[in-house]
Amino acid sequence: MKPVYLDNNATTRVDPRVVDAMLPYFTEQFGNASSIHAFGADVGTAIRHARRQLQALLGTEFDHEIVYTGCGTEADNMALLSALETQAGRNEIVTSAVEHPAILALCAWLEKARGVKVHYIGVDSRGRLDMDAYRKALGPRTAIASIMWANNETGNLFDVETLAELAHEAGALFHTDAVQAVGKVPMDLKTSEIDMLSLSGHKFHAPKGIGALYVRRGVRLRPMIRGGHQERGRRAGTENAPSIIGLGVAAELARTHLDEENTRVRALRDRLESGLLQRISHAMVTGDPERRLPNTSNIAFEYIEGEGILLLLNKAGIAASSGSACTSGSLEPSHVLRAMKVPYTAAHGAIRFSLSRENTPEDVEHVLEVMPGIVETLRGMSPFWDGASATRSAFTPSYA
Amino acid sequence: MKPVYLDNNATTRVDPRVVDAMLPYFTEQFGNASSIHAFGADVGTAIRHARRQLQALLGTEFDHEIVYTGCGTEADNMALLSALETQAGRNEIVTSAVEHPAILALCAWLEKARGVKVHYIGVDSRGRLDMDAYRKALGPRTAIASIMWANNETGNLFDVETLAELAHEAGALFHTDAVQAVGKVPMDLKTSEIDMLSLSGHKFHAPKGIGALYVRRGVRLRPMIRGGHQERGRRAGTENAPSIIGLGVAAELARTHLDEENTRVRALRDRLESGLLQRISHAMVTGDPERRLPNTSNIAFEYIEGEGILLLLNKAGIAASSGSACTSGSLEPSHVLRAMKVPYTAAHGAIRFSLSRENTPEDVEHVLEVMPGIVETLRGMSPFWDGASATRSAFTPSYA
Repeated sequence: MKPVYLDNNATTRVDPRVVDAMLPYFTEQFGNASSIHAFGADVGTAIRHARRQLQALLGTEFDHEIVYTGCGTEADNMALLSALETQAGRNEIVTSAVEHPAILALCAWLEKARGVKVHYIGVDSRGRLDMDAYRKALGPRTAIASIMWANNETGNLFDVETLAELAHEAGALFHTDAVQAVGKVPMDLKTSEIDMLSLSGHKFHAPKGIGALYVRRGVRLRPMIRGGHQERGRRAGTENAPSIIGLGVAAELARTHLDEENTRVRALRDRLESGLLQRISHAMVTGDPERRLPNTSNIAFEYIEGEGILLLLNKAGIAASSGSACTSGSLEPSHVLRAMKVPYTAAHGAIRFSLSRENTPEDVEHVLEVMPGIVETLRGMSPFWDGASATRSAFTPSYA
Repeated sequence: MKPVYLDNNATTRVDPRVVDAMLPYFTEQFGNASSIHAFGADVGTAIRHARRQLQALLGTEFDHEIVYTGCGTEADNMALLSALETQAGRNEIVTSAVEHPAILALCAWLEKARGVKVHYIGVDSRGRLDMDAYRKALGPRTAIASIMWANNETGNLFDVETLAELAHEAGALFHTDAVQAVGKVPMDLKTSEIDMLSLSGHKFHAPKGIGALYVRRGVRLRPMIRGGHQERGRRAGTENAPSIIGLGVAAELARTHLDEENTRVRALRDRLESGLLQRISHAMVTGDPERRLPNTSNIAFEYIEGEGILLLLNKAGIAASSGSACTSGSLEPSHVLRAMKVPYTAAHGAIRFSLSRENTPEDVEHVLEVMPGIVETLRGMSPFWDGASATRSAFTPSYA
C-alpha cells in the first residue's frame, strides 16, 4: 500500500511541475535578479512572469501589490506591525481566538511588550465568529482587524468581505491570514475591501520558504526587514528567484484547476467523513459543515487521545494531524477546539484529515478500512471508555 | 566561448550536489518537520544533520546556536534589533561606514524612528577600519557593535576577533555580518568572542532564500518573526527543509575544500588582477591587498563609467559587477569607495570581479583578452580622458 498523505493543511508535496520550473534557476539562470548582466536579467523577467501568475490566482490588478516574504508567518507579522506604525493614534488590534500562532503569538507579545490592546473575538460551538462582539470591538482606536480566511484546523471559512467592510467603517485596516484559503477558494481581490492578505506557498504545492503579503494599492506598508531595495524597498534580501518562480507555477496550477479540483476533493472528503461517522460511534465533525474548505475534515473521536490515533494511523501508512503542526508537541487540546468549547473528552481525540488534489479514492478507502479498528483498540485501553459506552447509547454533542 | 561568471559576491551557482540533496525533500520527504508522522520525522533527522554540517563549517559547539532565517538580511536585522531589546539601558550602535545595506538601512531607520544613536566608523584609503574611532565610540551606552567580517565590494577582511574583544570590554555585544566570509575564510567560533554572526546560503553555492544567525550560547535573542515554536521559539515559520538541507551540503563542500580552493582561487584572482594592471594604464586595485578575501578583486578604471564596462563585458559573455547588486541602479558611486575617498573619476569606473571554485584559468584569460579593448573603447568616448592622459603620464592615486 502506497502511503496516504492527509496532512495537506500542514504542508503539501511540491508539484513536480513546480520543481521542474525551479531547477534552471538553481544552476543555470542563477544570477542575482538585481544584477544587470545576462545571468540576472533573465531572472528578473521570470520573476515578473511569476508575479503575474500569483496575481491571477488572487485576482489582483497591480504587480506592486504583491510583496514576497520568507513565509506566511513573516507576512502575518509584517501586516500587523506595519498597521500599528502607519495608523497614527490607533493602538488596538481586533482578531479572533482561533487564529494561527503566527497572529496569536505576535499579539501576545504586542500586548506584553508594546502595550497594544488586543481584542480576541470568540466563536460559537461550530467555530463561527461572534459578529456582535466583532462589531463592538472595532472603534476609533482600532489600527487593524485581522481575521483568517479559513481556519487551519476545522477548515471553517470566515466572511472576510463583510469583516473588511465593518473594519473600514471604523476607520481600521483589514488583514486576513489566507494561508489555508489561497489555492483552495476562488479570490478576486481587485473587487474586495481587503487591505492585506498573507499566503504561504507550501500550502498549495509550492516549496517551503516562500510566502507573500498582498497589500492593496494605496495602503501604506512599513517594512519589517530593512536593507537593499528589493520588493520596492518593502522587503530587503536577495530575491528568492527559484521559489518565487515555483510559487508562480503553483499559483497557475491551482487557478486553472480550482473548480474541478474543489469538486473532486470535496467528494473525497465527504466520502471520508460520512464513512467514518457511519463506521465509528461517538465521533463528531467539528467546525461548520455549511461553510468549510472543501479539503478539510476535523473529526473528534471521544474518549481517546489524538496522538495515539496518529501513531496507529502512521503504522498503517496514513499521515494526518491533531491540530496545527505549528503547535504540535503540546499536551493541551488545540486552542481552536477550546475556543469552540468542544468537550475535553472529544477535543483530545480530534484528528484533522486534510486532502489535496493528489489524493485518490483508494486513499479514502484505506482510511475507512483501518480507522474503526484503531479507534476500537484505543478505546479498549481507555479508562474513560467503559463509563461512556455504558451511560450513553448514542453520541449527542453537549454543545450541539 | 562559455559565459564567464565573475559575480560570485552577488550570488553563486547552486552546486549540483546541493540540488541533488534537496530534491527528495520537495516531492518525497516533503512533510512538515514539526509533524509526528513519517513524512515529517525523516525531515527532522535530515535537518539535524544539516545543522551539524553548518556547525562544522563555523566551528560552533552547540546546535541551538544556529537559528535559520529567510536570508542574510533577516539575520542582520534580527541581531541588531534583538541587542537593542536585551541590552537594558543601552541605546547606541557602533558600526562601520562600509557595511552592507542590510545593516546601514536598518541603522538609518533606527536613528530616525527609534532615536538610536549610531556611530559609523570610517575607513582609510585602503578600506581599513579606524581603530581609534572604534575604541572611542564604544562605551556604556553601546548595545552592540556590528562590523562585517569581509566587505562585499573590496573583499577587505576586518579583524573581528579584536573588535569583539573591544566591544566586550565596553560591555557591548558584538555581531558580524559574515555573509561574504562564510565558506571563504576558516572559522572556529567556539574559541571566538563573537556573539552573533550572519550568513547567507546563496553566497556559497546553497540556494537563495536561506540564511542563518549564529547566536553564541548564553546570549539572549529576541525573535523578530513570532508565531510557531520553530527554531526553539526564536524564528517562527515552517522549517524550509529543502533549503536547510541544501545549506548543510553546501557547508560541507565549502569546509572540506576550503584550503585547496582558497589557494587555487587566490591564484586565479591574482593572475586576473596583475594581468589587468599590466595591460591597462590608469587602473588601480581598491581595498587592502594585504588582507582580503581570496576571491575578490575590485579595480577602478579611471575616467570611464562602470556601467559601460559591464555592458561591454556582458556582450563578451562576462558577468561582473560595479559595487553591490543590492544597490545597483544607483548613479552614485558605491558608498564603500566613497568612504575610502577613492577619487570620483576612479570610483565611477570601479569593477568588482568575484571568483568562486567554479572558475577556470580560461575564464581569467578571456577577461584579460577583452578588457583592454573595452577600456580603450570607452576612454575613446570619455570627455575626461584626453586631459588625463595628457597631464599625467602614469597613475598615482591621490590618496596613496
